[in-house]
Amino acid sequence: MFRTAELGRTVSKEEFERLADPLRIELLDLQQKLLSADFPVIVLFAGVDKAGKGESINLITEWLDPRWIVTRAYGPPSDEERERPEFWRYWRDLPAKGQVGLFLSSWYSRPFMERAIGTLDLPAFDEALERVTAFERTLADDGALILKFWMHLGKDAQRKRLKALEKDPLQSWRVTPTDWEHWHRYDSFIHAAERLIQRTSILPAQWHIVEGLDERYRSVTVLKALRDSIRRHLSQRAAVKAVATMPAVDVDEAAEPAAALTSGNPADQNVSEQVDAALLELEAGLPSVLQTLDMSLDLSKKDYERDLAVEQGRLALLARRARLAGVSTVLVFEGWDAAGKGGAIRRLTGALDARNFQVVPVAAPTDEEGAQHYLWRFWRHISRSGRFTIFDRSWYGRVLVERVEGYATHSEWHRAYTEIRDFEEQLIDHGMVVCKFWLHITPEEQFARFQAREAIAFKRWKLTAEDWRNREKWALYEEAVNEMVEQTSTSLLPWTLVEANHKRHARVKILRTVCEALEKRLGKEKDKDKSGHH
Amino acid sequence: MFRTAELGRTVSKEEFERLADPLRIELLDLQQKLLSADFPVIVLFAGVDKAGKGESINLITEWLDPRWIVTRAYGPPSDEERERPEFWRYWRDLPAKGQVGLFLSSWYSRPFMERAIGTLDLPAFDEALERVTAFERTLADDGALILKFWMHLGKDAQRKRLKALEKDPLQSWRVTPTDWEHWHRYDSFIHAAERLIQRTSILPAQWHIVEGLDERYRSVTVLKALRDSIRRHLSQRAAVKAVATMPAVDVDEAAEPAAALTSGNPADQNVSEQVDAALLELEAGLPSVLQTLDMSLDLSKKDYERDLAVEQGRLALLARRARLAGVSTVLVFEGWDAAGKGGAIRRLTGALDARNFQVVPVAAPTDEEGAQHYLWRFWRHISRSGRFTIFDRSWYGRVLVERVEGYATHSEWHRAYTEIRDFEEQLIDHGMVVCKFWLHITPEEQFARFQAREAIAFKRWKLTAEDWRNREKWALYEEAVNEMVEQTSTSLLPWTLVEANHKRHARVKILRTVCEALEKRLGKEKDKDKSGHH
Repeated sequence: MFRTAELGRTVSKEEFERLADPLRIELLDLQQKLLSADFPVIVLFAGVDKAGKGESINLITEWLDPRWIVTRAYGPPSDEERERPEFWRYWRDLPAKGQVGLFLSSWYSRPFMERAIGTLDLPAFDEALERVTAFERTLADDGALILKFWMHLGKDAQRKRLKALEKDPLQSWRVTPTDWEHWHRYDSFIHAAERLIQRTSILPAQWHIVEGLDERYRSVTVLKALRDSIRRHLSQRAAVKAVATMPAVDVDEAAEPAAALTSGNPADQNVSEQVDAALLELEAGLPSVLQTLDMSLDLSKKDYERDLAVEQGRLALLARRARLAGVSTVLVFEGWDAAGKGGAIRRLTGALDARNFQVVPVAAPTDEEGAQHYLWRFWRHISRSGRFTIFDRSWYGRVLVERVEGYATHSEWHRAYTEIRDFEEQLIDHGMVVCKFWLHITPEEQFARFQAREAIAFKRWKLTAEDWRNREKWALYEEAVNEMVEQTSTSLLPWTLVEANHKRHARVKILRTVCEALEKRLGKEKDKDKSGHH
Repeated sequence: MFRTAELGRTVSKEEFERLADPLRIELLDLQQKLLSADFPVIVLFAGVDKAGKGESINLITEWLDPRWIVTRAYGPPSDEERERPEFWRYWRDLPAKGQVGLFLSSWYSRPFMERAIGTLDLPAFDEALERVTAFERTLADDGALILKFWMHLGKDAQRKRLKALEKDPLQSWRVTPTDWEHWHRYDSFIHAAERLIQRTSILPAQWHIVEGLDERYRSVTVLKALRDSIRRHLSQRAAVKAVATMPAVDVDEAAEPAAALTSGNPADQNVSEQVDAALLELEAGLPSVLQTLDMSLDLSKKDYERDLAVEQGRLALLARRARLAGVSTVLVFEGWDAAGKGGAIRRLTGALDARNFQVVPVAAPTDEEGAQHYLWRFWRHISRSGRFTIFDRSWYGRVLVERVEGYATHSEWHRAYTEIRDFEEQLIDHGMVVCKFWLHITPEEQFARFQAREAIAFKRWKLTAEDWRNREKWALYEEAVNEMVEQTSTSLLPWTLVEANHKRHARVKILRTVCEALEKRLGKEKDKDKSGHH
């Protein structure tokens, strides 16, 4: 989940300055529009210490008109507060319509801290998060715009940050013993954070995970999200008003932002376009999680044949044990066209008993499937215990092709992150093994493979016009993949990103990953047997 | 919560027959429209045994075109099902778009049963209900129409029903030992049911609580809800389509039903109007919870003065104890105009230390309040511990005046039931005492009091034109009160309905209720002190 927030993304001084002025002008303009809007903006910050929560708030307060901003932070409750229900102080502090409320700490702080240091057990933690989502839903239903930023730093990066601050005589006061205490608990913090984000990333109030290492990158990310969300929400409410003018249609059910409905005064447009351009250029320069892969990884033919044989043998044994233990395995294959999904799957199934697996190629839904919720067609293929179900493309199509091609609306594919987490959680809770693979190749490699396909007559059928068209959307897909990994890769359900420019390496890595997952799970199984209860 | 489902409401054979034909025609017509609609209808039944779950399903299947209906019931999971996540079988059985799915048992059955017989602890129960709401939200977000009926029978009524069936040689087979087992657990069943309904009555899928005693009344209630919801949902989706034709507006965000958008073919209209007329006439004859009150209750002047003195003294002592124990009290007063709220409140405050209470008269929101969520203005008045906060009118205005006068949209006031339950739950969880009073007077009594006010010059200011206008809306308000009690009266937070035609009786009853609530709470407090931890 935090892997995409440890890419070391930075923004140069020049890039930042090119963006700063127009962005600030647009934000001030949006804030003006807010004043007459019928909703408040609630922006809250949480995350790792020293990842830039306070700095971000200072920046926003500095850039915007402070008269319409309220900033909140909470210590331990005062006796005034202790004598009332916990949420009393949060209700009291809510920004009014047209205002922006910045929360340096919030309704998340207590449960998160208590969970991280272990004084709150899991059911109590979940219940607290339930109350939080109910609270945020109540506000969102009423029209509030809620923005949640999780500022992240890798464990090592945080240590460096603390050290650096300590060295700086002007900054050292900012490092408290508590900071180091927290750092030593880093892992349990992250563990609690993962659950918190999963449980509370509901559609009207999803978390933005921000890499906090580089101050300029951090600022751009926060300000961009702020700008995009306010623009979207303003036009959304405008659309709602338009809807409201339809006879007897209810105002409080939102319609999605209508570009056409955003105030189109040319001056604004001009600025927005400058911002868009600067952002586009800037983002083009930023690495996605895919660019962290070492695409040179390869295996010699000899090593490959040896490793392949070893892993396939290992898998065959594990599959038999899984069958006996009644442990099912679900494998998800996603990746670029021509990344070699089919070949990798064949190497897997080669090691499996044909009665013991099914490969589910996911194409356009059948009529029957089209008449159901999009998850229905995947639920139906979940196999009985002890079997392998291999999805060649999957439910992730919702947040990949359907997102990029516009087959799914913004809220449909946004919602999907939560729906997918919930779906996979049920598989895991049921004791299944779930592995998710993204096969990555470089555009150059894909191009080469397309040409090869054209050359080899008997493979030409594999090459469709679409394959060519999709290449143009590479950047959009890469963005979608990055967000998919951010939103759906957890310690329990990690994505395995496979360097697939060299098929031999890819195939062995996939086999090995599946074997390790099975061993881990069956190990548990054995322990269970030992400990008696099954 | 179930009080409104034990009113002994019945529908005569004649009334039913007058309604049957047009209603059936309209339902068949709606089912036709469904075939081309882009959503499924999910109707599920739960509740007390022998309250008519099966009969209702049979009736629907008989009245509608069975080709487009699927009926589901679940026993203990088959091995096929046990080997997959629990929800697999429910996903598999979902009706397709355009179809109606009738669920005789459902995703509620297992957690409910296990909770009722005590094998499932509360946190696990809540978690199971969480999964259920997530499931229903997923379907509703995708456009599904979800209808949930809780068929209710009073404990005694259920016993009679079972006895009667046993006597009937043709029916006796329907009574199993399990039925009697369940009956003996009636109270724990109801207790689990209350929590289940509270936790899962979310806006897109709220529970309809149906009094199951009289078969014809039951059938009318279910069929009416079915008809209204399908009509509403069809026009809602139509509105959404209309919205979709607006540039770049997202289809999947719903707009509320637009009467103007319901297919207005005169033939249909004609039938619908017949149904509306028959229903209106029929419902006018049905008692609301208010008509169960004995409005003749009164006290002699002598008894009144004695009781008043006693209860006020009692309250004074309890208030002091509460102050010491740090227990706060929240009193909510709602009722008809001129029902005597003010007088009753004065009798209460007369017994309280002026530094120890505040009376909050709720009128139109201030500018500041208008710029916030409607609950904000009530949260802000929650007092510190040990004090009394008395609301003269309250947050229930949302589901009373705002509903009836149309100040709140359908989904705003519908949503409010959940928001209010959540709000009051937080007060209770914090250890506060909460009493809610509805002061009821008959229209005749109100009329008399209005006239008296006009007569007595110094009281005339109290009588506004509005008072007269509201009388015309009596029936609408009565319906709203009935639903309010149904939705927000729980064993933890009961509504006290006060027979207020005679003020002396009303005032004493209110004082006594407050004293009893405080004694109950402070008793607990004492025990806590004894047991040491506070």
